Amino acid sequence: MNGLKEIGEKALVAKRALGKLTTGEKNEILLKAAKALRDNYEVILKANETDLENGKKAGLKGSIIDRLALSKDRIYGMADGLEQIAKLPDPIGEVINMKTLPNGLIVGQKRVPMGVIGIIYEARPNVTSDAFGLCLKAGSAAILRGGKEAINSNKATISVFKKAISELGADENIVQLIEDTSRESATAMMKMNGYIDVLIPRGGAGLIQSVVQNSTVPVIETGVGNCHVFVDESADIDMAVNIIVNAKAQRPGVCNAAETLLVHENIAEKFLPVAVKALREKNVEIRGDKAVKAIVNDVKDAAEEDWATEYLDYILAVKVVKNIDEAIDHITKYSTGHSECIVSESYTNTQRFLQEIDSAAVYVNASTRFTDGNEFGFGAEIGISTQKLHARGPMGLKELTTTKYLIYGNGQIRE
Amino acid sequence: MNGLKEIGEKALVAKRALGKLTTGEKNEILLKAAKALRDNYEVILKANETDLENGKKAGLKGSIIDRLALSKDRIYGMADGLEQIAKLPDPIGEVINMKTLPNGLIVGQKRVPMGVIGIIYEARPNVTSDAFGLCLKAGSAAILRGGKEAINSNKATISVFKKAISELGADENIVQLIEDTSRESATAMMKMNGYIDVLIPRGGAGLIQSVVQNSTVPVIETGVGNCHVFVDESADIDMAVNIIVNAKAQRPGVCNAAETLLVHENIAEKFLPVAVKALREKNVEIRGDKAVKAIVNDVKDAAEEDWATEYLDYILAVKVVKNIDEAIDHITKYSTGHSECIVSESYTNTQRFLQEIDSAAVYVNASTRFTDGNEFGFGAEIGISTQKLHARGPMGLKELTTTKYLIYGNGQIRE
Repeated sequence: MNGLKEIGEKALVAKRALGKLTTGEKNEILLKAAKALRDNYEVILKANETDLENGKKAGLKGSIIDRLALSKDRIYGMADGLEQIAKLPDPIGEVINMKTLPNGLIVGQKRVPMGVIGIIYEARPNVTSDAFGLCLKAGSAAILRGGKEAINSNKATISVFKKAISELGADENIVQLIEDTSRESATAMMKMNGYIDVLIPRGGAGLIQSVVQNSTVPVIETGVGNCHVFVDESADIDMAVNIIVNAKAQRPGVCNAAETLLVHENIAEKFLPVAVKALREKNVEIRGDKAVKAIVNDVKDAAEEDWATEYLDYILAVKVVKNIDEAIDHITKYSTGHSECIVSESYTNTQRFLQEIDSAAVYVNASTRFTDGNEFGFGAEIGISTQKLHARGPMGLKELTTTKYLIYGNGQIRE
Repeated sequence: MNGLKEIGEKALVAKRALGKLTTGEKNEILLKAAKALRDNYEVILKANETDLENGKKAGLKGSIIDRLALSKDRIYGMADGLEQIAKLPDPIGEVINMKTLPNGLIVGQKRVPMGVIGIIYEARPNVTSDAFGLCLKAGSAAILRGGKEAINSNKATISVFKKAISELGADENIVQLIEDTSRESATAMMKMNGYIDVLIPRGGAGLIQSVVQNSTVPVIETGVGNCHVFVDESADIDMAVNIIVNAKAQRPGVCNAAETLLVHENIAEKFLPVAVKALREKNVEIRGDKAVKAIVNDVKDAAEEDWATEYLDYILAVKVVKNIDEAIDHITKYSTGHSECIVSESYTNTQRFLQEIDSAAVYVNASTRFTDGNEFGFGAEIGISTQKLHARGPMGLKELTTTKYLIYGNGQIRE
């Protein structure tokens, strides 16, 4: 993959140039890129039409075509996104934990850019714009590798960005697109140690697993969410119904939607009929264990695999548990470590749940749908980390940075 | 590797038990383990003798035999180390960035254990004790895989620990040793996703690269240090000589020792004769470029590969540079991103060096030898990260932890 090495070398040069830009200069690029998107929306739409035609010929599913399709509104939305990023505080430059050691050395950690960030994603051309904007604001050069279905849209978008960047006199290689969309190019990108500092996959479970399995570059694993809501015996029933309906049905296709409902046996007879009725009004299919079926009619059997499935659909697995211990054990066994919620009025049980559940986001009495960078007030999000290294939960600009130690001496040597 | 799956399952159980221990209980285990080391030093020494005999038969190098050899003093030193760890503040439980969102949700990040930490290391039986202590205090179960040369010492040490842990009624599987020291077991350990949350290699460049190349579990890359000292034209010559002698010769076999000296051309004629004399008094061999050889006698030629070599020995590569730009370019090209130092009285140049050098630790006017968890005041160190993800620079207890979001609601759902 000679092309990739060249892209890598260019990124190493670009990251040094980018590292010297002020916040104002980075924001200027973002704003100019936003304007360029609006000014050139027709060019991008035209490229997108080619992608859509190819996609239809290739028989892509309707949902993929939906994600692939751009419109004037969507492109303007991408531009709005870049302007939002320009308004966010610059994460770079903050110095933390600065202190003077007994020998007089002054030591602190400065927040600095990662350097080069790689993003691998699927047929969502808007990710091209988001990823560019977030990496730029975080001070890192971006190497983007989108799905082959969106290649024409991505090329058009990047070309618009590069022109805007060049016109401001900056290095256009602060963002680069890998135009070779073969599987080999993706695999080669995952081995670009020495060029790429971190690789972030954005997409479905298959893509993420492929990156985790094959990458020798450090990876931040994002996304898969088999999320649980546990309704404890002391739960407020109205609140619990609202939360599970929202967590399941407000937007079922996203990673922070609930997939399994666990119900304490002492509240099941009261709670389940109300909850299932409300869920069915939202067209949610219920799959339950024996105890659930004994309380509610027309429930399909939940098989073992249901407990482990991220449906991303209007389906909910439901199980009655003896107590909080069984709930915690079940979640520990099946969760992907994304978001879990307890609905309870018990002080002791809520504290136990917060303590013992080992997930990125643990909720008391609120919908799991809030696990999101914008909801958490970050202003932007590159993804939701389900690993424990570096970042866990929603990742904003800060999570796209690293630190380095600065040490100020006056001749200290080690004894 | 059925054995490994069993070890993984036991670790998953042990981490939950460990997560419920108080700081006092964890410290009690550390202190009892320290006492047990002292009480049983003869048992461990006997096992170590077997390792030493096997090692000599296998023709191991003297330096490896040195590292492998235990003594009563060394074992007591391991016990002291555990007692030190018991005295350190517990990193677990701190809640940071807690705030109330506009919708009333209260969101904060709690510092929590990683879960299960894997450590792969070579023939240093003291790492067995250090790693156990640090992982335990950080609340994580440890799976250790030491080099085959130290297997008997490691088994004896772990057996002493397990007995001490059991006697306190805790789960002895909070520390486990992989006794199969085949290459296959190491590779299999690197694929224990779902069991091991992070894998830390401790050892030489070969081991670290093998882990980086083969692991699908997230890795923290530690250690390789091709460290630079740049003596700027405005440097105080005495200070610069002291720093390079200390950085190179105080302990050349460690990763924070200097390997290349860069000297500004305007100070080279004054500085180099004094510096080389002082370095030669410490038996340091000088390998220089043409400009160096024109100033100092009996200097070997530095070849291209010298600039990229971590000697870990009494050898120093020396180069004369035109200015700080050439120094920064050279370091950017050859550094492994560990520790670099500028010796200078120029405000502008020291600021540029701190800003533009992309390494874990960047020094002004001090020896690179300070890049160390103990020197930085962490009280303990598991290694020095040269990657940008999660931790960069010396890693103490905090770097062995992760965070999770806690969200307190009162019925919030997403609109």
